[in-house]
Amino acid sequence: MRHFSDPAQGRHAPLRELHNGEWMDYAESPARFEAILQALGPGEPARDFGLDPILAVHDPAYLAFLREAHALWRAAGRTGDALGYVFPVVARRPLDLERIDARMGAYSMDVSTPVAAGTWAAAYGGAQSALSAMDAVLGGDASAFALCRPPGHHCGADYMGGYCYLNNAAIAARAAQARGISRVAILDVDYHHGNGTQDIFYEDGDVLFASIHAHPKNDFPFYWGHADERGAGPGEGKTLNLPLPQGTDWTAYAPALDTALDAVRAHGADLLVVSFGADTFVGDPISHFKLTREDYAAMGARIAALGLPSVVVMEGGYAVDALGANVAAFLGGWD
Amino acid sequence: MRHFSDPAQGRHAPLRELHNGEWMDYAESPARFEAILQALGPGEPARDFGLDPILAVHDPAYLAFLREAHALWRAAGRTGDALGYVFPVVARRPLDLERIDARMGAYSMDVSTPVAAGTWAAAYGGAQSALSAMDAVLGGDASAFALCRPPGHHCGADYMGGYCYLNNAAIAARAAQARGISRVAILDVDYHHGNGTQDIFYEDGDVLFASIHAHPKNDFPFYWGHADERGAGPGEGKTLNLPLPQGTDWTAYAPALDTALDAVRAHGADLLVVSFGADTFVGDPISHFKLTREDYAAMGARIAALGLPSVVVMEGGYAVDALGANVAAFLGGWD
Ligand SMILES: [Zn+2]
Ligand SMILES: [Zn+2]
Repeated sequence: MRHFSDPAQGRHAPLRELHNGEWMDYAESPARFEAILQALGPGEPARDFGLDPILAVHDPAYLAFLREAHALWRAAGRTGDALGYVFPVVARRPLDLERIDARMGAYSMDVSTPVAAGTWAAAYGGAQSALSAMDAVLGGDASAFALCRPPGHHCGADYMGGYCYLNNAAIAARAAQARGISRVAILDVDYHHGNGTQDIFYEDGDVLFASIHAHPKNDFPFYWGHADERGAGPGEGKTLNLPLPQGTDWTAYAPALDTALDAVRAHGADLLVVSFGADTFVGDPISHFKLTREDYAAMGARIAALGLPSVVVMEGGYAVDALGANVAAFLGGWD
Repeated sequence: MRHFSDPAQGRHAPLRELHNGEWMDYAESPARFEAILQALGPGEPARDFGLDPILAVHDPAYLAFLREAHALWRAAGRTGDALGYVFPVVARRPLDLERIDARMGAYSMDVSTPVAAGTWAAAYGGAQSALSAMDAVLGGDASAFALCRPPGHHCGADYMGGYCYLNNAAIAARAAQARGISRVAILDVDYHHGNGTQDIFYEDGDVLFASIHAHPKNDFPFYWGHADERGAGPGEGKTLNLPLPQGTDWTAYAPALDTALDAVRAHGADLLVVSFGADTFVGDPISHFKLTREDYAAMGARIAALGLPSVVVMEGGYAVDALGANVAAFLGGWD
């Protein structure tokens, strides 16, 4: 399977995140990117498809802000990375805000997603990697891998969150639709619910979003990913959330995967985007599932057996030493 | 003017708040309470009206959580004060959440409002102070002062924020309504917009909410208090926001006050609740208006000239050394 990345993706390096009331070292480290490259080899450089396919998913004002947020933060005399501390929990709406803190909060859902000097370039590079992998598949490859980092599935059309700034899976899916493939399925097998992806497609009847994840009553992002979220309007029934308890191993995971794959088939998808997170790994430092490397090979094979053109987009996975091999095992399912 | 407080209000002592990307010492300190008591004298102890008048404003699940949040935080092995780090910025709704961080975020709008060991008792005592002041006015006093601390105007029916946990002004207003006074006006002259009070009465045609505050494009709470927020449904036109620029002095403040007082008159209010913050003071460490002690005396006199039965509820004010005298100057307007 070909894979794509951009060197800028290794240069996004926030220092810390707020977690459980304390600062902790930023878990979504540049080392993750290097570890995967090490395991897979250098791959191909992402082609630059420009801003238009990103604008097909994200709000222009959000993008403009994301691009300049770190510079504005520094210009306001702040040190370190940009982070919000107040959030529009009631009736979000476009507002003409000036103070950088106001704008950071307006476009964020948490205090775990700092904007650092290299953030925009890395996120942009990741989105281009996703677009490049999609381009390969639309060009005839059975599958391709986008080594996205930072990840994407927690950010919505106009908010960042959960280490995510641009929703790579959504950008890839919309790019496929722009090239004539209307029925797309997005399968999210990261440990965490892909709330941003869900929000983007919540009322879209053409894009199925199916997610298997840790139950949000105990795991990030908490306020999305509950089983009763099923889509709305034309998208009613096109969101499928399969939350599983902490401690889940392959025995319990595999049936949920089969349920999700049934939904992909029932959707009549012509193309699949997989949001793959290796944070379901038994050794992951911030997560609580118990999948093994062998399970990743089995999971990849089972998804590949759908026989759909597939773009795999990298999401989370924080056991850095095991990460490259875990990704390789998953992608090996398509061989 | 009689004033009311409860000793528990001095025992809420969070250690720090997140502000502009860094921890800072908690500005809403117990010393504020002592400073006002020092200036006004001990006053009268709040009577305990129980939980019912608080439940007339706040969501029962929120209250149950607030009461146990700090104990849950400690039980989860956390140190320090309880603080959220993820926020439901999209489609808040009641959810069955377990993890303390999930629940903190679900009931919060910022990372500046920690729940410490003494928080519930202090907030409860403050609400009883407001109810006691209202009881004095309903019993015939022309005016009364509730030395509320923590303040209340930033918290809504089911969320804390901006150092606020229980909305004392709203609780007092609802108590007046329960005793037969239907048309109430709430005048908020804190430096910051009273977003919680606004939310609580946004669709209520009987309660006018008029607020003069720093423009939210640059000041907390950022996402509320813009001039185009005017109420909704039966409350359409019953919310009046008068944002003013940083640097405002009495010359520019007084006309806005007159506009607000005109609205109170036009509402035909039978009773007034004043959310008074002394953080409009020229020496306030976190704010940017330029009112003086003399201005507070003038402001109090101008509001008192409405001739309405008035309950003054304490909100912010962080220049601790000047706080007691500033409060006394404002209340002197009723003499
Ligand atoms: Zn994850
Ligand atoms: Zn204030």
